[in-house]
Amino acid sequence: MVDFSLNTALRQWTDLLGPDQVITGKPSLEAAERGTFWTGHSIPAIIRPASRNEVQDCLRIANRWRVPVYPISSGRNWGYGSRMPSESGCVLLDLGRMDRIVDFDEGLGYVTVEPGVTQAQLYAFLKERGSKLWMDATGASVHCSLIGNTMERGFGHTPYGDHFAHSCALEVVLPDGSAIETGFGRYEAAHAAPVYRWGVGPSLDGLFSQSNFGIVTRMTIWLMPEPEYFQAYYFRCEEAAGISALVDALRPLRMNGTIRSASHIANDYKVLGALQQYPWEATGGATPLLAPAMAQIRQALKFGAWNGSGALYGTRAQVKEARRILRQALKGRVTRLQFLDDRKLLLASTFSKLYEWCSGWNLSRTLSVLKPVYGLMKGIPTDRPLASTYWRKRTVPPADMNPDRDQCGLLWCSPVAPIEGAHAQRIAELTTDLILRHGFEPMISMTLLTERTLSCIISIGYDLEIPGEDARAKACCHELLQRLGESGYYSYRLGIGNMSAMQDSGPYSELLQDLKQTLDPNGILAPGRYVSNPRKASATAK
Amino acid sequence: MVDFSLNTALRQWTDLLGPDQVITGKPSLEAAERGTFWTGHSIPAIIRPASRNEVQDCLRIANRWRVPVYPISSGRNWGYGSRMPSESGCVLLDLGRMDRIVDFDEGLGYVTVEPGVTQAQLYAFLKERGSKLWMDATGASVHCSLIGNTMERGFGHTPYGDHFAHSCALEVVLPDGSAIETGFGRYEAAHAAPVYRWGVGPSLDGLFSQSNFGIVTRMTIWLMPEPEYFQAYYFRCEEAAGISALVDALRPLRMNGTIRSASHIANDYKVLGALQQYPWEATGGATPLLAPAMAQIRQALKFGAWNGSGALYGTRAQVKEARRILRQALKGRVTRLQFLDDRKLLLASTFSKLYEWCSGWNLSRTLSVLKPVYGLMKGIPTDRPLASTYWRKRTVPPADMNPDRDQCGLLWCSPVAPIEGAHAQRIAELTTDLILRHGFEPMISMTLLTERTLSCIISIGYDLEIPGEDARAKACCHELLQRLGESGYYSYRLGIGNMSAMQDSGPYSELLQDLKQTLDPNGILAPGRYVSNPRKASATAK
Repeated sequence: MVDFSLNTALRQWTDLLGPDQVITGKPSLEAAERGTFWTGHSIPAIIRPASRNEVQDCLRIANRWRVPVYPISSGRNWGYGSRMPSESGCVLLDLGRMDRIVDFDEGLGYVTVEPGVTQAQLYAFLKERGSKLWMDATGASVHCSLIGNTMERGFGHTPYGDHFAHSCALEVVLPDGSAIETGFGRYEAAHAAPVYRWGVGPSLDGLFSQSNFGIVTRMTIWLMPEPEYFQAYYFRCEEAAGISALVDALRPLRMNGTIRSASHIANDYKVLGALQQYPWEATGGATPLLAPAMAQIRQALKFGAWNGSGALYGTRAQVKEARRILRQALKGRVTRLQFLDDRKLLLASTFSKLYEWCSGWNLSRTLSVLKPVYGLMKGIPTDRPLASTYWRKRTVPPADMNPDRDQCGLLWCSPVAPIEGAHAQRIAELTTDLILRHGFEPMISMTLLTERTLSCIISIGYDLEIPGEDARAKACCHELLQRLGESGYYSYRLGIGNMSAMQDSGPYSELLQDLKQTLDPNGILAPGRYVSNPRKASATAK
Repeated sequence: MVDFSLNTALRQWTDLLGPDQVITGKPSLEAAERGTFWTGHSIPAIIRPASRNEVQDCLRIANRWRVPVYPISSGRNWGYGSRMPSESGCVLLDLGRMDRIVDFDEGLGYVTVEPGVTQAQLYAFLKERGSKLWMDATGASVHCSLIGNTMERGFGHTPYGDHFAHSCALEVVLPDGSAIETGFGRYEAAHAAPVYRWGVGPSLDGLFSQSNFGIVTRMTIWLMPEPEYFQAYYFRCEEAAGISALVDALRPLRMNGTIRSASHIANDYKVLGALQQYPWEATGGATPLLAPAMAQIRQALKFGAWNGSGALYGTRAQVKEARRILRQALKGRVTRLQFLDDRKLLLASTFSKLYEWCSGWNLSRTLSVLKPVYGLMKGIPTDRPLASTYWRKRTVPPADMNPDRDQCGLLWCSPVAPIEGAHAQRIAELTTDLILRHGFEPMISMTLLTERTLSCIISIGYDLEIPGEDARAKACCHELLQRLGESGYYSYRLGIGNMSAMQDSGPYSELLQDLKQTLDPNGILAPGRYVSNPRKASATAK
């Protein structure tokens, strides 16, 4: 029965999209079933619509034959599930062919894109036009989908770091195949559609982020104007316990707008992971990398227990004043507060040896890590951080990195807290102890995501080729999520293996299920993704 | 049957709340049925729950007996409907008794309130504690509910002017009487609940703003840290056509963060309405006040065709730099760019006569208008703008102003556009011609609400005591909404008389109706408010 339905659906999708856009070859499917952790979920087919109309028709067919589909944009949701569907048996609905930039306004600073548009594509688009607008980029991959990352509420490094907060005017295909536009977009020729988020009446954008209520086929993204002057800052904190005073010192600056961007603070493990792979030789192959060894390495390589980066944006005078305030706030709390601008970076790159001799700063190595981060703070996408997914591999990352294909193990856990030192310290200590105890390295970054929010990204890196590692890493991640939750720290985003970890019972869950039942009575869209299946639906769906 | 149901519901509400909290006396009901325009809607009773639990039970009773209820917080939604329900026969559910400030954090800058908490109450609360946090206030009334205004997506004058964008963690009673908390609030002791908006999974806050999907019984509001230095600026533009160049000059400053607050630009009619009532004597009683007469008055009273105000927030150096940029941007586009800080204001108030002599600036009159606006830019609520609702009355506003009781006619229309000069000019011209043609005065203010959005508030002021005026004003407002819509300018907010004016058919409307049907199958909550009644519901509801 299931197979009959699936086969019929596949035939109808093939009629709709053409045989090249319905992929059922084993190698392609097996590749898509592989992520940075194991799920065992099977993917019976991949379908590739090229337009909103085709997406609508694909969903109508899915409904007709009760075949669940799982939409992906670029499928680079690494650490949270890559392309893998939230349940076994879902047909992948790959939106990668919808890669048009459909609107752009230099004066008002926005661009309207389809789900296949990647970070690299938008960056190239802006460069080509000599645009004075900056995009915000995540460190994930240059081939990451803008819509995919935004709807997952991912973030980057500029003042527009909170992606979902800087987007609007969604075009959404609902599970039944109908399509809507949110905000003022529903009205004919509404001038404010791409600039004003709320529209009139209930605001529905939030419904479609981190959910399985619809497929976003178009979105407007706001772009920041290039500032007259840009200066990055870097600092470090020698002691692990220093994070508390540091975070408390930064909060007022984030709240009063002196720091306007999503500044990052990374622990020593995170920095080491960005610099190199696991030090197999130095440790004689033993894992995990324990604190004393880590301390030795960070002394040798000259970075701190915590390492901060951020940037100041404005006129020269605005940046100068922000610099003064930042210096004052961080005095005594950090060592080596360094400022870097384009001119200094060019000089440094050109005369790095000389510069090292003058400043005593190990610049060459530092630059290899700093440059991509420096670029990210100007909205320049980079693949550099991707190399860190090869942390525990025994072979060096290839030029064409692909953590899914290369069986890099990666699980992410992302608790959120208020920007307060005590919270930062508690999360760091709990995480460090727990992850080391499980035999992995606690790689932690903390981002001042909004004026009040500290977003922590904790990555557990491992090698999927080692038998048993996946189960051990998952047990570690699961316990971490649980312990953080018990301490009041909940993740802003979930991997497909952890969707049920934060689902509660009670009226909120019931409301989500009721909404799901209303919007997707046959349960054909990404079942289990952030919203658990309604009881009613499971009775009627196959 | 209806009466039986209503009477039974009233008895049960009385059992629940006590006889004092179920009001059925004719004078009270008649007062509540009166707003700044006529609806003819009758209110059979007012019920006044004091807690979330009571609200839940009230809704359960409403469901049991199919009696529609219409929630109000302070009921001061003047110009959009005051306390009047969106449909006749709704029982008013008055949340005014729920007036607790339930949480406050000076360091993280937030306060958590119930719907009865007013602007004045929060302001007094902050003063009492010597807080260094500023609230954002609207000019509507000091007794305006914070939650009411925020859920209607109202706005104020500081960098936190977009109220809904600066709130989170809603507690919502759903129509069936169950209660949820949005964002991380649904999890036990989640530290980030009051600081991080999105939570995990679908974000539902937007669903409950401008809707009839639930009753917000608690909300967290972010408060801005008091800046080291504050300076207001004022400017004017002598020619009506100057608005275009002015708006284009301000946009880059709003986008790059030089102007961080919701700056306002008011036309001559709006300023006159703030200064005084209709010039009955000068016009010999004739209406409307035509352009030539208006030009004479503005020359005599020394204000411009457009009059701007805004403020700069930061350290002294930050404000100084912003001032430099603002001066440069507005050069040649405005006359009389003036800066005002606390010291200058104190001096001016003390020595206003002397100051006038020195500066040639008619300070006393100016101060009477400027001071409340100056205060609003620092988040100080004021009742001063309320006087303008008495514009067309023949008697002076009483000390205890109440536009509903005093039959002040007021209709608001609030189109939104991108911050572009051409749009501003088109809206202004269309509005001015149309409203004058209908025999009223075009009072217009334009607010740089967000980095990209211009929010226009157009008020039509009249005297409800004059027979026929209400119908004429409504015809004017209706045509204005329609003409603006045809030109691509849609309102961000609607009066209860205009709810159907912007309802379209098609999938978006159907989605809203499906959501309504799911959340409120008996249609008992604020029927017709922003969401039209589902076809199914109307069959089952009485």
